[in-house]
Amino acid sequence: MERGGVTVRVLGIDPGLTRCGIGVVEGIVGRPLTLVDVNVLRTSASVPIAQRLVTIERGIDAWLDEYSPDAVAVERVFARSDSSTIMGTAQASGIALVAAARRGLPVATYTPSEVKAAVSGSGRADKAQVGAMVTRILRLDAPPKPADAADALALAVTHVWRGGARARIDAAVAAGRTP
Amino acid sequence: MERGGVTVRVLGIDPGLTRCGIGVVEGIVGRPLTLVDVNVLRTSASVPIAQRLVTIERGIDAWLDEYSPDAVAVERVFARSDSSTIMGTAQASGIALVAAARRGLPVATYTPSEVKAAVSGSGRADKAQVGAMVTRILRLDAPPKPADAADALALAVTHVWRGGARARIDAAVAAGRTP
Repeated sequence: MERGGVTVRVLGIDPGLTRCGIGVVEGIVGRPLTLVDVNVLRTSASVPIAQRLVTIERGIDAWLDEYSPDAVAVERVFARSDSSTIMGTAQASGIALVAAARRGLPVATYTPSEVKAAVSGSGRADKAQVGAMVTRILRLDAPPKPADAADALALAVTHVWRGGARARIDAAVAAGRTP
Repeated sequence: MERGGVTVRVLGIDPGLTRCGIGVVEGIVGRPLTLVDVNVLRTSASVPIAQRLVTIERGIDAWLDEYSPDAVAVERVFARSDSSTIMGTAQASGIALVAAARRGLPVATYTPSEVKAAVSGSGRADKAQVGAMVTRILRLDAPPKPADAADALALAVTHVWRGGARARIDAAVAAGRTP
């Protein structure tokens, strides 16, 4: 019998209108994790917002089709972020959440601080530190570029490491039981 | 031959997570407009955000199926709005934009000031004034309740009155021509 848990495949999404990071990580807590794929969905600012969101939705749906993840992790967006782009980021995050939930996939959201703390040990790590830790955790040759790609992988890693416990708690709460 | 333009049916959406106003108005510029239907989609704060957004998406899709509007008008969301609910409102607005654009429907966004100015003549009209004007414009017996329902109708009215011209300008710009 296999020692340890079941392999879990998580799709992480760092939502954005201009650049939406998307990455898939596979693994078991306590063993080395594996990079499955990573990329950035891009849309042009010259295209109407509704059409940009459709492009992002199609991109996310294509990844969900191709990689059939067990769960999806999306960065939680805050009103205090850079206000010039925050509305587009929030709209893109809504698209990501719906794309996953529509398929019945478990969806978790993590704050940037939670992700930084999970992968680097500090909630105040900078982008370079997050990129370096993602590189080390996934045994890559170089940090994924741009930062949105690294952030998407960091979200997926965070969920593999933290999501299992949280998902069980959420399920217990939803079922009206004390976890 | 009919005098005047073609009848246009517009679906207006006042996005929100807890209450999402949705209404359909039909008419021709310069003639009395008609209320087709109005309601409010509601989701509970006790449900996970992703599932609430799926409920809103299903609700909007059902209205698009039932009423086959020619265009959709959605309120534009700003970062300076009430910050405790603004992220959910932005996410719901993204869902509304995508639901329309995915079907190839023209989508317009209007600021609250544009809507108030269109229906009441003042960009600073309060909710009661907007409700009263919607009641008068659509020849209703009483203002639609709650305010989200009246706002959705006001958006649809604004688009019937202003959207035609704007859509032609947008199309000309998109085609690289000076309108």
